[in-house]
Amino acid sequence: MRVLGVDPGLTRCGLGVVDGGTGRSVACVAVDVVRTPADADLAIRLLRISEAVEHWLDTYRPQAVAVERVFSQHNVRTVMGTAQTGGIVALAAARRGLPVVFHTPSEVKAAVTGSGRADKAQVTIMVTRLLKLAQAPTPADAADALALAICHLWREPMRARIAEAEARSAEIARKHKARLAAAARAGRANTTTKRTGTTR
Amino acid sequence: MRVLGVDPGLTRCGLGVVDGGTGRSVACVAVDVVRTPADADLAIRLLRISEAVEHWLDTYRPQAVAVERVFSQHNVRTVMGTAQTGGIVALAAARRGLPVVFHTPSEVKAAVTGSGRADKAQVTIMVTRLLKLAQAPTPADAADALALAICHLWREPMRARIAEAEARSAEIARKHKARLAAAARAGRANTTTKRTGTTR
Repeated sequence: MRVLGVDPGLTRCGLGVVDGGTGRSVACVAVDVVRTPADADLAIRLLRISEAVEHWLDTYRPQAVAVERVFSQHNVRTVMGTAQTGGIVALAAARRGLPVVFHTPSEVKAAVTGSGRADKAQVTIMVTRLLKLAQAPTPADAADALALAICHLWREPMRARIAEAEARSAEIARKHKARLAAAARAGRANTTTKRTGTTR
Repeated sequence: MRVLGVDPGLTRCGLGVVDGGTGRSVACVAVDVVRTPADADLAIRLLRISEAVEHWLDTYRPQAVAVERVFSQHNVRTVMGTAQTGGIVALAAARRGLPVVFHTPSEVKAAVTGSGRADKAQVTIMVTRLLKLAQAPTPADAADALALAICHLWREPMRARIAEAEARSAEIARKHKARLAAAARAGRANTTTKRTGTTR
């Protein structure tokens, strides 16, 4: 399975494509950072990022897109741009019918380093090691994009299995409820018939 | 001039097209609200909204798009969705080469009611009156989209004039600086020539 990981951002947007092999083996296909000038129009910056992402989707043909889930605890201005960029990426994927999954920073850190509180340096070291890269990807946004793709490759099978199990149990619950409702209706119908009988 | 005003939101996205005539006269061309189900995938919701906005841009052919600028002071989850939707709208406009301007809620309120602290009801009343509508647009998101378009029509000429004046004064300052630098260079060259003269 091939995944495009995206660390969204207006100034620097990290893009990383990773192939997942058997077991936990992973291989880096491509990694880069798209930059847009801070003094450019917001709409133009979003357009540039959108074009870059579409180009990557066309070039590398990933089967899924993993995007970092943003929280607004941080700097307000940055977060808005990050959310807008993430939306643009999700849209480009949805246009191609690709699944998009948002992963939190701690999920990503935990997946590649074993700790949800790992720092940027640790993430970069582990990404470099896991992908057997000759040198560490820079800037951090590039390493983060690769980490997101790895996180998705490793978490997704489990996530999908849990979702399937939940859907199955919801279906069983639905059928059970339907049977109960049918039984209740049958009981009421019976009572009505009896009553009608006595009125006649 | 025709403007598409957008009150971005994942659950309800207000869209309103307004034509500006001579002076401050304005006329409503179309108004509606795009809804997406809260239980749908984020990427799918963004795709639906994007398709609706593109359809409106194709159908009504506005010359500019006005979007509400979001702040993250409010509910975190809502704000993320609003920012993502706003980004999608800006992208659709940029794809068509249309200018996109973000207006703050208080700018919009001030434009249509005279007060930046007006409430939703006042905005709806003024929008209904200004556009001479037979009945108030509902829900509030629809009225807000129309208010955004009106705000843009009234503020934009002033905003453009100010930007032009600023650009002109920056150009004058730049030329003045260049002349000063040239004079300084000429002065230094003169000194060098003199020195070279004495050395020979």
